[in-house]
Amino acid sequence: MSDTSEEDIFSAPSSPEPENAGFEGPEKRLEVNFTKSIHTNGLRSIGREDWQKMLDLAKCTIISSKSNDFVDSYVLSESSLFVYPAKIVLKTCGTTTLLNCLDKLEELGCQIEAEIVSIIFSRKNFNFPERQSFPHLNFETEVSQLRKKFHGAAHILGPVHSRGDHHYVYFSQLRDADQDVKEVASYGTLEILMSELDPEVMLKFYRVDRDIDNAKTSTKEVGLDSILPHMTTDEVMFNPCGYSVNGINHEDGTYFTVHVTPEPHCSFVSFESNAQISPVERQQLTENVVKIFRPGRFSVVLTSEAFCSLSDKNHIEGYCAKFRNQTQYEEGFHVHMMNYLRSPR
Amino acid sequence: MSDTSEEDIFSAPSSPEPENAGFEGPEKRLEVNFTKSIHTNGLRSIGREDWQKMLDLAKCTIISSKSNDFVDSYVLSESSLFVYPAKIVLKTCGTTTLLNCLDKLEELGCQIEAEIVSIIFSRKNFNFPERQSFPHLNFETEVSQLRKKFHGAAHILGPVHSRGDHHYVYFSQLRDADQDVKEVASYGTLEILMSELDPEVMLKFYRVDRDIDNAKTSTKEVGLDSILPHMTTDEVMFNPCGYSVNGINHEDGTYFTVHVTPEPHCSFVSFESNAQISPVERQQLTENVVKIFRPGRFSVVLTSEAFCSLSDKNHIEGYCAKFRNQTQYEEGFHVHMMNYLRSPR
Repeated sequence: MSDTSEEDIFSAPSSPEPENAGFEGPEKRLEVNFTKSIHTNGLRSIGREDWQKMLDLAKCTIISSKSNDFVDSYVLSESSLFVYPAKIVLKTCGTTTLLNCLDKLEELGCQIEAEIVSIIFSRKNFNFPERQSFPHLNFETEVSQLRKKFHGAAHILGPVHSRGDHHYVYFSQLRDADQDVKEVASYGTLEILMSELDPEVMLKFYRVDRDIDNAKTSTKEVGLDSILPHMTTDEVMFNPCGYSVNGINHEDGTYFTVHVTPEPHCSFVSFESNAQISPVERQQLTENVVKIFRPGRFSVVLTSEAFCSLSDKNHIEGYCAKFRNQTQYEEGFHVHMMNYLRSPR
Repeated sequence: MSDTSEEDIFSAPSSPEPENAGFEGPEKRLEVNFTKSIHTNGLRSIGREDWQKMLDLAKCTIISSKSNDFVDSYVLSESSLFVYPAKIVLKTCGTTTLLNCLDKLEELGCQIEAEIVSIIFSRKNFNFPERQSFPHLNFETEVSQLRKKFHGAAHILGPVHSRGDHHYVYFSQLRDADQDVKEVASYGTLEILMSELDPEVMLKFYRVDRDIDNAKTSTKEVGLDSILPHMTTDEVMFNPCGYSVNGINHEDGTYFTVHVTPEPHCSFVSFESNAQISPVERQQLTENVVKIFRPGRFSVVLTSEAFCSLSDKNHIEGYCAKFRNQTQYEEGFHVHMMNYLRSPR
């Protein structure tokens, strides 16, 4: 990755697009909580066609879906959507325009008489920021767009100099949440954002035959089917390469999702889960994920409602922590971020 | 303060300079540690004339100086300089060009055969960024300038949206510090950066008579002479207004320094000290400083070598904490930042 292709917080570089343009793996992420709806199923009573209309505005398509008693999971042409009765989590990668969904999302909420309670928009710094479209040209433009509707706070976590892995977070609390619509999904979310992945591992995320989706095989081969208990997985292997999996827990409705961009010049893997686990289990999960994908470097981003202390226990074997940050927003919203680099042998 | 005059992290606004242009109170700050010199007094063997040559490059002037067994303190036309045998702390406000000092500082180090061990450059976001000169046009330019000589990490702490009080920090560790030159000044530094100050308090920082420097009287009246024990103070009241004080502790060589910009449309006060105090004492000191100046809002920035935990004990009476952040850099350098806003009565 060259210095000029690295996103700079300050301005989007205008370098010409290279011939073998890399894919932008790092996702834009939106988590929106709503008030209780008059409909028992809340947001889940909104049909796939309506969600697709919203996703049209972000320029992505529903490929597959799975449901259980708690949640609807959608695998998208670019990443994933999870729908709970009073919460959605939407991640879109590539050059999608996620924030263009906001009006339609509010409108869909209106249909079921639910209002937005809080919004978290976040993303890692892009590898190819010059290829993004409005409003994702840079964080300034994204924040301007968000602040038109949702008064909130913008933060940049992590090193912002060239080649520094940092994370942009916008948080807006519009009203107090209804106590009776606390979602299973509210307990905290772990993201592991991995770069410079082991090329040997990445080979598992190419189609063996262009006409055959071998995703299920890869899920099992790398061990993602057993990374968390009680998960039903829904996966896609893109043509010729690239992989997405959504897993939903049929016992408590939590999810995990993994997206793989395997090409060597832009390799990136994101893991995310709202599994209700202890700090020790979270540590173990992180180690397990890192062991599967063997990144050269990665960021861990943990959002939660409660203040968790960062300690030296955040050691990951084979890696050294380069940086730790914990940020407590006014309203009791917390973000922890840690960057890790593979230790020299 | 208008939205357009607020510094944006993304680009320096190019609004025309207003007629009654405000003074830029928030200082640029540089802390530089050196290796042990062949001279017993280290950097203190460098004379005032040489320091002034360095300060010429930053566009400020030594007004007054005081010394004790541990440290030389200089009050400048724009803020302060403290010189220890193997460390300097330089703060300059207004439109000074602090980072232009770096070459000369290295050269002065060479004269006494001392090399730079580490550098911390930091500042609050400017109120009037469009009036700054190169390399202080924006953080990007400052970081580019620093990275030419000192490889390090750039971070932005605190909310970066318009009207958000945030802090830019660049840290570079060039080599391991000599264990035998651990300065008294290395135990951690507390900064309290106050905005929207009580106009009644600010009246004490105007000259009563244009020809008379009433600074000593004001130091006593507001109680800065007793804010920390064993301090000898050196103060200046500018004409027609504005105040600086350096205090140096004759028992342990620690310092405090306060700079007041009293004009209502750009009021700002900075307090800084490397006093060796416990977290409880630090909390009490912060309360005492805030009681003297009665700001509408303020940031607390604490840099230290050891990891201190942020807790609910950081409560300051009459204020609510809007945001807390703690950042641990790779090399064991820690920065804590908290923003406080006056509570509604």
